[in-house]
Amino acid sequence: MDKKLAKMIRDVPDFPKEGIVFKDITTLLKEANGLRSSVDLLNEYFKDLKIDLIAGIESRGFIFGTPLAYNLGVGFIPIRKPGKLPAETFSQEYALEYGTDRIEMHKDAVREGQSVLIVDDLLATGGTAEAAAKLIENCGGKVAGFGFIIELTFLNGINKLKGYNVKSLIKY
Amino acid sequence: MDKKLAKMIRDVPDFPKEGIVFKDITTLLKEANGLRSSVDLLNEYFKDLKIDLIAGIESRGFIFGTPLAYNLGVGFIPIRKPGKLPAETFSQEYALEYGTDRIEMHKDAVREGQSVLIVDDLLATGGTAEAAAKLIENCGGKVAGFGFIIELTFLNGINKLKGYNVKSLIKY
Repeated sequence: MDKKLAKMIRDVPDFPKEGIVFKDITTLLKEANGLRSSVDLLNEYFKDLKIDLIAGIESRGFIFGTPLAYNLGVGFIPIRKPGKLPAETFSQEYALEYGTDRIEMHKDAVREGQSVLIVDDLLATGGTAEAAAKLIENCGGKVAGFGFIIELTFLNGINKLKGYNVKSLIKY
Repeated sequence: MDKKLAKMIRDVPDFPKEGIVFKDITTLLKEANGLRSSVDLLNEYFKDLKIDLIAGIESRGFIFGTPLAYNLGVGFIPIRKPGKLPAETFSQEYALEYGTDRIEMHKDAVREGQSVLIVDDLLATGGTAEAAAKLIENCGGKVAGFGFIIELTFLNGINKLKGYNVKSLIKY
């Protein structure tokens, strides 16, 4: 748990709905050393794993995923909400509190045997992260691990990611 | 115009609707040297301008904006679609082909006098870019310039950004 980073996160009560305290990363991002330390800590943790690609989950996963890809010297794949990617996609459903949602990835984004690190800002229930892993594995890729800025441990999302290498910088 | 980068962009016909040829940057992004060169070229162009912050426009502006912020050693501000930012926002309308849309920025994202570089993947009609500049200037910030990966010159978006320092890596 990185306390210096944790202090840069802002609590916003009642967002996106009443009773929820939203962990706002924009206050961390606008500090040069907030962005830099987040990326450097994930880089330090994952740099020896022979990663071929970073996959970032729309849209806050893009924010941390691309500077990490830049630093690791690898390419970046966007995993997006339905209908956003222009070429042929694979689609994966995941459960929400009420109902379901989907994420998509280009069919040619990952080649057989490539090792992919999945990045997002937040590990909550783990549904999106698990769906992202399925997308990569369905293409024949290998999930090298998951990098998160924040983990809400009381939601037990980590249970959906058993057997994977998971690094979260800040835990609540 | 960077020809090596231009070759990494994929044309996707009839996306998002019939008759439009979409310039797909995901084929550039998944190549380590595509992401790296894009960021390095923007960095090289803007590094002496004393920039305080990068603002990225949702969501492909996040992809190029954060590694650039990392490299320039500055913070990052997300400019987002309505309802996505948790704290108090300023909102700015812009014209679409039919109708209007809005983008938002946190009220406390930019302090008086800060110099902000706006980043997005694509300069098309320039409506979003112009709205982003208004958001920053309404906060008392100064727009240091605009960095784009692609400019569709036939749409004349550059006319909306007169007086600003604009750099586009690839022009069609």
